[in-house]
Formats: sequence, structure tokens, C-alpha cells
Amino acid sequence: MIRKIPFPIIVLSLCFSIAAKAQQIKEMAPGVTRVTVGEVDRFSPYNLLKEKPKTEAMSKLPESGVGVDPKEIRVELNARGAIVHIPLGNKEEIYGFGLQMGSFRQRGLKRRPIVNDNPLNDLGFTHAPTTFYLSTKGYGIFINTSRYTTFYCGTHKQVKDNVNENTGAGVAAQSVEDLYKNTNNKSGEVIVDIPGAKGGDVFIFNGPTLKNALQRYNLFSGGGAMPAMWGLGLQYRMKGDSKQEDVYKMATYFRDNHIPVDVFGLEPKWQSAAYSCSFVWNPDNFPAPQELIDRMKAQGIKLNLWEHAYTSPASPIYGALASASGDYKVWNGLVPDFAGTVAPKIFADYHKQTFVNNGIASFKLDECDNSNLTRGSAVWAFPELSQFPSGIDGEQMHQQFGTLYFQTMYSNYKAANKRSYFSIRSLNGFASSFPTTLYSDTYVHSEYIRMISNAGFSGLLWSPEVRESANVKELCRRAQTSILAAETVFDSWYLKSPPWLQFDRAKNNKGEMLPNAKEIEGRIRTLLNFRMSFIPYLYTAFAKYNSEGVPPFRALVVDYPEDKAVYDVWDEYMIGDNVLAAPLADSASSRKVYLPKGNWYDYNTKKIYAGEQSYTIETRLDQIPVFIKEGTILPMAKPVEHIEPDTKFEITCYVYGSQPTGGELFEDDGVTFNFEKGSYSTIGLSWQNGKGKANRKGNFKMSRYIVKNWVKI
Amino acid sequence: MIRKIPFPIIVLSLCFSIAAKAQQIKEMAPGVTRVTVGEVDRFSPYNLLKEKPKTEAMSKLPESGVGVDPKEIRVELNARGAIVHIPLGNKEEIYGFGLQMGSFRQRGLKRRPIVNDNPLNDLGFTHAPTTFYLSTKGYGIFINTSRYTTFYCGTHKQVKDNVNENTGAGVAAQSVEDLYKNTNNKSGEVIVDIPGAKGGDVFIFNGPTLKNALQRYNLFSGGGAMPAMWGLGLQYRMKGDSKQEDVYKMATYFRDNHIPVDVFGLEPKWQSAAYSCSFVWNPDNFPAPQELIDRMKAQGIKLNLWEHAYTSPASPIYGALASASGDYKVWNGLVPDFAGTVAPKIFADYHKQTFVNNGIASFKLDECDNSNLTRGSAVWAFPELSQFPSGIDGEQMHQQFGTLYFQTMYSNYKAANKRSYFSIRSLNGFASSFPTTLYSDTYVHSEYIRMISNAGFSGLLWSPEVRESANVKELCRRAQTSILAAETVFDSWYLKSPPWLQFDRAKNNKGEMLPNAKEIEGRIRTLLNFRMSFIPYLYTAFAKYNSEGVPPFRALVVDYPEDKAVYDVWDEYMIGDNVLAAPLADSASSRKVYLPKGNWYDYNTKKIYAGEQSYTIETRLDQIPVFIKEGTILPMAKPVEHIEPDTKFEITCYVYGSQPTGGELFEDDGVTFNFEKGSYSTIGLSWQNGKGKANRKGNFKMSRYIVKNWVKI
Repeated sequence: MIRKIPFPIIVLSLCFSIAAKAQQIKEMAPGVTRVTVGEVDRFSPYNLLKEKPKTEAMSKLPESGVGVDPKEIRVELNARGAIVHIPLGNKEEIYGFGLQMGSFRQRGLKRRPIVNDNPLNDLGFTHAPTTFYLSTKGYGIFINTSRYTTFYCGTHKQVKDNVNENTGAGVAAQSVEDLYKNTNNKSGEVIVDIPGAKGGDVFIFNGPTLKNALQRYNLFSGGGAMPAMWGLGLQYRMKGDSKQEDVYKMATYFRDNHIPVDVFGLEPKWQSAAYSCSFVWNPDNFPAPQELIDRMKAQGIKLNLWEHAYTSPASPIYGALASASGDYKVWNGLVPDFAGTVAPKIFADYHKQTFVNNGIASFKLDECDNSNLTRGSAVWAFPELSQFPSGIDGEQMHQQFGTLYFQTMYSNYKAANKRSYFSIRSLNGFASSFPTTLYSDTYVHSEYIRMISNAGFSGLLWSPEVRESANVKELCRRAQTSILAAETVFDSWYLKSPPWLQFDRAKNNKGEMLPNAKEIEGRIRTLLNFRMSFIPYLYTAFAKYNSEGVPPFRALVVDYPEDKAVYDVWDEYMIGDNVLAAPLADSASSRKVYLPKGNWYDYNTKKIYAGEQSYTIETRLDQIPVFIKEGTILPMAKPVEHIEPDTKFEITCYVYGSQPTGGELFEDDGVTFNFEKGSYSTIGLSWQNGKGKANRKGNFKMSRYIVKNWVKI
Repeated sequence: MIRKIPFPIIVLSLCFSIAAKAQQIKEMAPGVTRVTVGEVDRFSPYNLLKEKPKTEAMSKLPESGVGVDPKEIRVELNARGAIVHIPLGNKEEIYGFGLQMGSFRQRGLKRRPIVNDNPLNDLGFTHAPTTFYLSTKGYGIFINTSRYTTFYCGTHKQVKDNVNENTGAGVAAQSVEDLYKNTNNKSGEVIVDIPGAKGGDVFIFNGPTLKNALQRYNLFSGGGAMPAMWGLGLQYRMKGDSKQEDVYKMATYFRDNHIPVDVFGLEPKWQSAAYSCSFVWNPDNFPAPQELIDRMKAQGIKLNLWEHAYTSPASPIYGALASASGDYKVWNGLVPDFAGTVAPKIFADYHKQTFVNNGIASFKLDECDNSNLTRGSAVWAFPELSQFPSGIDGEQMHQQFGTLYFQTMYSNYKAANKRSYFSIRSLNGFASSFPTTLYSDTYVHSEYIRMISNAGFSGLLWSPEVRESANVKELCRRAQTSILAAETVFDSWYLKSPPWLQFDRAKNNKGEMLPNAKEIEGRIRTLLNFRMSFIPYLYTAFAKYNSEGVPPFRALVVDYPEDKAVYDVWDEYMIGDNVLAAPLADSASSRKVYLPKGNWYDYNTKKIYAGEQSYTIETRLDQIPVFIKEGTILPMAKPVEHIEPDTKFEITCYVYGSQPTGGELFEDDGVTFNFEKGSYSTIGLSWQNGKGKANRKGNFKMSRYIVKNWVKI
């Protein structure tokens, strides 16, 4: 006899069966373990990952111990959602959670990696909400969800643990700040709160070191990004209301004055409608776009177009997109459902035919983060309650919108075997392979520096754009930081002339140039020439990012996890394996620099410093604040004004110390994906008996690096 | 034959049946309609409401038209939660959402009434997250949920509406601020997002006017709060580390100098452990608590004890509470499950025996809001993922913790037929009947004034405490605001001496008094004496709050909804029916005052002003910035130094204008609930032919108001 079970009891038993569901443990790639309990969301970061893991490179990494035993990861499921508990040892420090602005060392904090355009007050909100963290114990944890997730990083105790805490504050406190001081940093868990989830899905990236775990994460994501080589040169963005003639004049200005530039960016008004976007050239300002593209090309300047995805009724694709978009508008425009299949095709095809095929080199993808979650009155984004034809909800769409938008737009370049370098305002996890920098409307210099370090923990690249400044000193310091970053951008979207001719916004737009404009221009030229000299080294670091997963820009703790003195050092970072950058914020004349193990050379003064100590270092406005590790052979190019596939670099190798361990250069065409099929060379640099040697290996057809000089420091 | 249905299909069909569920419409009380779709949460505000609606008073309100047709309320249910759509006409303005700090007129904003101890940046976060708003069209909407809810107040358009908006910003914008200016205020809906909900449950409070809708809300909640009469006098809070002797000295200081005071508050260190709390007297600081209580009583001073609910292992009730608490600790203390039945009984019984029975008059219930949601690094609250034995989750517990805590603590007073007046840092909806003010650790004077107006929209009372000041002027302005509020509090928890002897915190604690301390003391005495004179009028306004639901403190738009000039006026408010308060913020010497319809008298200068115009008004530091409506008979008492059940008030009636419409006084013992059983009187005040008349009606045993003088203004 079959007994009839009333409905509520069935539901109850279902809930219980979810809660009691068994843990599944699966090996995903060498050193990557996945722990799953319950249902995995359809729109999880892993499900949206389109790249294949570089398993071969992963298998070459040192065999890892176990940073976290998968069986010690505990998932609770209840009516509210999923709760994941991950062990945290007393001596571990943790880093990550995407493009964090306000904090670096994350233990003891509540972190909410939720996408936001203006991440104030250090809540964990960010342009790039990566649910990934790394531990100094040598492992990484990725929570595979696109939902709004909260990480309690050793902040909370359960009653059952019955551990007496140092409550820290207490009755002796005589101020509000004292009362609420955070001292609860001894808890033995990271607790992850995922409301709405029906499962917990955790990827463990093993070490043995923090760096190895990070490498595995980047390789699992498809390997680090490989930008077009020209992308490492200067991008200069024109004022928002510029016309075609203004662009021509600006190109002439740059070339006449020998200021290097590779890319010009055009702002909203290149379109016939923007906010929302038409994706159609504005005939008043740009009557002859193809002429523009071609004339710029002739001067060695690529064009980057600003846009966002919210599609105006004035756009030719509005009609086709209408049924493949979310149910709420943004700025009266459609929100394309990039999580489906229809909208990406319409959107990409249109862009291919209209722009990519005609020579537009890259895009700046704006507003793909969520509008301000930390201020009350600026609401422009689609609400979290939005629904999309693909089935994704507004919350998960927000978290993934940048990633999906990038994938849609970059697919055209991949299909055409063209590389590029985008700018974008949001990305999620597993985005290491995306050749794009992130940028922000915020403008606190110290936070801009911190984001360089933090981006490296999450497979992200950050661009600390230079806009206006309060004085010449700040302008130069900001330029230095931008030159020591993944992309060097002067974003003059509200400045008529370059800021080095007039840093003050009002005066700049009135045409009142600085009395000593030419002198400042000279300093900026010197700084930009450093960047152009540095590109071969930087490009080689990117190649290592691609093939081995080592981020070209990374916090000191990645390379020196055993040195506790670097745990809080967010304002210095490694570029490649041999260069330590220590940018000066605001209008500083000097700063404290901590140097890790070994000896280091001030690049400017050539003075040598012993490591594991701090120094106060002065850096001139026309110098670049970097330190070179003893043993380095640093290849620096004679600066060129822009980079083409046939550009040859005249290299001088600087040899630091008496027993250099060598150096390397990576060589390919810089613009196609042919390197993936083996069309590249490496140039090994070595120094013996007072003589340098460059040893070229590989099968790229042309020698791009001419090693001319060797200089012993 | 019974067909076996595989589990997933059953679940699917269940989900579908929820989504398609019919709308239920039910009349809850005169002019209160409930619209429900799907399941109602067990811990909804309505389910937690313990008071009975005052239906008789509601039925006496004018018959209402229909502000919102229940059938026009649309509820969508999906896997993510519930979405409620409520119509919003183009000409409506809306107000409410609890104790909002940063904004007043709410149309065009995204509001998140989520409980928070430090509601920065005008996100809608608040100490008192009431999911209730009022429209100038004459209705109120209450969303019956304790979940974190977002209201889009006319900010967003659906694609299907296909309305062209004025996008406002756009390509012409030349600044970030311009770009994101909020101009999307034409949408015809309030959209409510309730993630996690399985139903939408809406209470419509009909008008016909906004004021009537508000009255219905307060009456439905059990009628407005009726504090103990002594609660309307001054509360002075002692420094955190005060000892018994310090309290004695302070009492002597107040009485010797004839500064009125009714309540002394003791801060954390009265307890043997705090942060978390033991609820046990600290024998070092207070060796003889009963002597303290009795000596204070002899001087006419009640004692208020600070506490929070997080129960220390050092507390005698820790053991009993352990199994009736949440699974996470706060400051190493238990979080009692006040939503169950066990914890409230243990907690209340202990407090009754230890404090209430021994003469403690009231409590300050701290930290019952959530720790900072708008700053990243101060995490002390229990996480939202917490679970409680009653079944409530951490999110809903946060929203309701203040309400449940208050109910637990106040139950002792109700059972003993004693009234009180508490301070608390969080309340939810339907809390109109709770005799407690809310307070905050924030300290922006203009926000403190705005909260007086905003609290009135949601059945809340707000106390703009005076703490430190930058100068004497600010001190006096803050004192004026506190005197023109529901409770007058000087909170000196970090000041050794009263701030009028030294406003500067550091100097105060070093014992360096102001050279002119006695002069400032005199001014403050003058101001406090105004408060004591004003109490009979104010108490009568509270009686009307209780019986008719008219808040004693309310924004001008409540009384003048037809006057669009008051829609943005948040820094003026009505006290009772006849007094308009216009506090001066910070160190202002004068301010602009808009006066609505009719003629108004400056209380200080007796000058008459015609309404529907703005004036610049100066107010001296020892004056109180109020305006009296023409036609008012204002009863002012000769100031007493404290209020007892047998205190008699010598009244002078001020007659404003030639044709006064009368006045009233409410009379009872001021300390019991006997008035609810009819033990009260009302004194009607009238003026005819140049003579005043006081007409006493009712059956309270004693005449407390002696109407002595009549003064024609």
C-alpha cells in the first residue's frame, strides 16, 4: 500500500534532506579541490568560466601539502541560505576579496565583496567582487557563487566553541571609538554567509606557498591576461565633448612634442546618444569616423571607444534586444541579458561589423558595476529584483555583469585573432585571463596604490588613472603611480588640455596654461619615457602571468610570505620578479620604504640598501620610485613613441650586483594569439666574467629586441 | 491507482503554485486593509504586535476614501523572494521609513530601512527600520516583514511601461556628480524588494488625510505611548566610571543650584561586568545600591540603568539562558532569543526581582541595533546567519531585536501597574505604544533635528541627546533642541561635570571649568525651566497621541498636507496642535522659518507673523525657538524641579489672538495605567469677553493643575 503523504511534510523532509546532504569532494585540476554540498547555482562564476585551465603548467608547480583539509570545510544549509565554515589558524593572515580599496590585511574584518561603483567606508564593496582569498599558510579559497556574500574573517565565535575572547573594549572605554574597537580576531574560522543559496561550493587552491596557490588560481582561470603590447603604452582620453578636429590637433600635439602615446580614448559624445547608448557615431562631432580611424592609425595611435551596455531606444539594436533584456531599464535603456545566448550575439555582431572590423582597437566598458550602494540618493542601476530571460536574477547579474559584458565584447577580438587591452569597471572571479584593467571614479591616491597590491591577489589588473590634481607635485606623483601600474592612463574626460599643461580643471578648460607648462611637459615626457623603456620587462612579466600564473603586479607578501614585516605593506609591490615599486602618494617628497630579504638598489641613485629594514627615500618628480633586487639583469629599451608589431627595441641591460642570476625577455608579434601556438621566442640574459650575453630561443620570425649595451651598476 | 511523483517535480509544482497564488484582501480594523499573497513570515511585525488596536478611536476618524485600491497592489513571488508593487501618483510625496537621518522627502530615493547603529550616507539604514510610509494623497503603506527590505520610491521603470524618462544626466555632464544625478522620479510605482520572502503582506492605512492615516497606524499599534510624567523632565546621565559618592554629589549639585532633574542615568560600570553584561551591581563602585535608590528617591530623582542584552558568562542568568540563545556570541556574551518564550521569562523575571521591585525606574537599552553596516571594520553584532531556538534567523532578529527587548523589559512595569520612560537604540514597526525614546551615537545637529520630524511618521519618539559641544553657543542650541523633543537628555557618559560648566571634553575631565560657568549654568537653568513649564502642554499632547494617535512631535506636512511649501520642511515641526518649533542648529544666531497658513506669534518677542511666508528669526541662547498659532490658549506651569504623582502645577494661560479656539490639559497620576480605566480628567480652557475659564471634567481624584493667571498676548 502506498501511503499518501501530505504536501507540507514532503517539503519539510526535502529541506531536511538538503541540510543533511553529503559533502562531495572532487579534484578539478592539479592542486585544485572542489567541495560541494547541495545544489550549485546555475550562474556561478565557475559555470560562466569559458577558458580552459592550464593544467600542464599547474602540474609543474611544486607538489602541495594540504593548506585546508577539504573534510574540515563545513556547509550548513537552511531556509535562509548556505553557511560555509572554513578553518583559520591563529597565525594565518588572509588577503584578497577582489579589488579592495580600503583594506589590505583582511583578518578580523567583515568583508562583503559586492559590486559597487563607489566603494566607500571599507565595507568590502568593490568594483570587482571576487569571492576569493589567500592565506599565508599557503592556500586559496574560492566560494563559487554570484550571490551577495559576506565573509566573517575570524570575527565571530559560536556559543558552542565556548572560547573566552579578549573583549578588548568594555567598561573602561571612554569614547564611542574605543567601545567598538575590533579585537575579535582570534576566531578559528572564516564564516561565509550566502543568503538565498541552496548549496555551498568551495574551490581550494593548494600551495605549498601563497604564491603557488595564487598561480593555481590564475592558471585555473585560463592563465594570466596577455594584453596587446601597444596596450602597455600611454592611453590618453580626450575631453567628453571633443570633436574630430580636436582629436587631430591632439595627435599633432603629442607627435610634435615627442610625448609617447599609443591609444586615444573617446568619451560618451562620440555617440549620437549616450546615457543610455546608441552605439552610433555622433555625426555632429565625428562626421567621418573612418577617416579618423585611418588618420590615427597613420600616426600610430589606436582608438578606444567609451560605452556602457545600457542600450538606448535610439540604438539600431534596441528592437532586437528588447526581448533579450532585463525587465527594468537603466537611463531609459535596455539591460542586455548577457547571461543568455541571444543578447551577446546581437551585441557582439553589431560591434564587430560597426567597430572591430573597421579598426577600433579597444573599448572602455563603463557603468557595469552597480550604482552606489554606499550613498542613498544616486540610484541608476537596475534593481536586484530585476529578472532576465536567461533566468539570472538582478543580484547575480550585478555581480557578473562586467564579466559577461567583457566576454561578449572581447569575443570579437578573439575570433579575429586580434589582441586588445580594455578598460572596464567591474569583473568577477576567474577573470585572470581577461586583458583589461579596472578603473574607478574614486580618486584617493593612497587607495589607488593599495588597489595595485590588492588586484594581484584576485587575478585582476588595476589602472590608477590620472585626472586632475591640486598641484604639480600631485600630478607628477599620480603620473608615477600610473606608470608603475598595469596600464598608464591620463583620463582627461573633463579637461580640454593635458593636465601637465594645466593641472587645475577650471583654468585648463578656460585655456589658461601654467606659466611653466613646457617645463612640466618635459618632466612628464621623462616619466612616460621610463614607461616606454620599461615595456619589454613588463611585457615579459605579463608572459609569465599568462604561462605560469604569476601576476605582474603583486603585494610583497606574495613573494615573501615568511616575512611578517610585509603583512601590512600595501603601498609597495613587486613588478615582475626583480623590481619593487614604492610610489609616493599625494604631494609627498619622501616616503618610508621597507625592503625585504636581500640587497636592493635605488634605481635612481644606484645606492644599495640592505633588506629587512625600512628607509626614508626621496624621489624627484621626474624619477620613478623603484628598487632593483641584487642579482637582476634589467633590460631597458630606448623609448619609442608608440608600439607596432614591427617595432624593434634597442635594449640596454643593467646588471645589478656582482653575481647576477640572469634575466629574460619574451618576444612575439604583440598583437595576435599566435604565441599560444608557439610563435614566440625568449631571450635569456646572462652576465659572466664582465660580459653580458643574450641567448635567443624559440621560433618567432623576427628579432624585436636588439641588446646593444650592458651597464654594470 | 496513486501515481508516484518524483520529488523534484513536486517541488517545482509547489513553487509554481506559490507564484500563482491569489490575492487575499481583509479588513483588519476601521480603515485598515490587509493584502496578502503567499505565505506570511512567522516573525512578521504584525505577528509580534502584542497590543490591541484601538478600534473605537479609529472608527471615530473621518470616513476615508481609498488612497490605494487594494486590487492595484501587485505581488510577484519568485525563487529569490517577493516583489511588491504599489501605485504612486505623479503628484504624491512620501515620508517615513522609520527614524531616517539623512533624508526627509523620500520620493525618488532607494530606501533600505535596515537596522544599523551608525546610519551613514543616507542609504535608508536607521536605528528604527520601520517598513512604513505615508503619502500626501492620504494613506499609509506598511509592508509586514522583518526581512531586509528595499523600497524603490518611484526610481525605476520597467521595460514594459515604455515611458520615456527625462534622463537628466547624459553626455553634457562634465563631472561625476552631474553624471549620476538622480532625476528618475516620475515612475508610477513604489517597488518593494524582499529577498527570501515567500509572500507579500501589505497593510493599507486609509486617510482621508495623511494625518488620519498616521493616526490609524498609531491606533492600530495600540495607541501612542504614554510615558510616566516624570519622564518628560530632565534625564542626566552620569560619567561612565562614576561611583556611588559621585552620584550623591551630583544630586546635591542639582538640588543646591535649583537645576531641575527627574532622572539620573548610570552607565556600564554600575555593573560588575559590561560588554557583555552581568546585570549585577559593581560592588566597587556601588557598594550599597538600595541606599542609592532610596537616597535618590528622597531627592526626587529616579534611576535609569544602562544595559544591553548580551549576557556575560559572569551573569547569574548566563547558565539558564545558554540553551535559549542564538548560536553566536556578542562580546563573548549570549544573545537571548527574545523571539521565543524561555529567554524573555528568564530575563524579565531576573530584572523584576533585582531591579524593578527595588525601585529602578527605567532602563537604557543599548546596542540592540546591528553593528555598523556602513563602515567596514567595527564588527560586534551577531551575524545575520545566526540561528535561534525559536526559529527566527539572525537577519529578522536584528530587525526586531529592539522591539522584543523592549517588550521583555517593559512587561515588568506593566505587570506592576507602573509606567516608565525608556531609552532604546532600536525599534521596528507597530511600536507606537512603547514609552521609550530612541537615541544615537551619531551627533550631527541638523540630523538630530530631522529625526524629530521623521520619527513622527513612524510612531517613534526620538531623543536628541546633548553630549559635548564645540562652544557655548552650540551647547545652548543643542540644549534647545533637546528641550523641544520627546525627551530632554544630557548624556555625560564621558564628561565628569555637566557640559554647561565646561563644554570641552578634555578640559571638563581635567576639572578646568569655564570662567563664566555660573553664567552658562544660569542660561541652561532658564532653558530647562521652559521645559518644566511646558510639561503640562506636552503631557496633554501625549494623551492625544495615546487616545487619538496624533503624534506629539510631527512634521508640518502632517498638519498641512495641502501646502506644498512644507513638503521639504524637516527642520520645523509641530508640538501638539498649537506650537511650532524651529530649532537652530550648530552655532546659528538666526534661521529661516516658514510658517504655514494662519497667523503665528514668536513666543519670545510676542511679535505676530502672517503665515505662508518665510522669515529670518533670531533666537537668544536662553530662549526657546517656538511659534504659537493664533487662537491658542497655551497653559504654562511655574517650573518645578522634579515631578511626583502629587506634584501640583501652578498654571498661567497665555491667550494668543482675539478669538482663541480654546485649549486643554490632561490630568492623571502620571505613573500608573489607571487612566486606561477612566481615572483621569480633562481641563478645558476657554476665553470669552476678556476672561479665562478652566472647566474640569472627569474622575481623577486630585486637581493637579491650578490655573492661576491669564495673560492676553
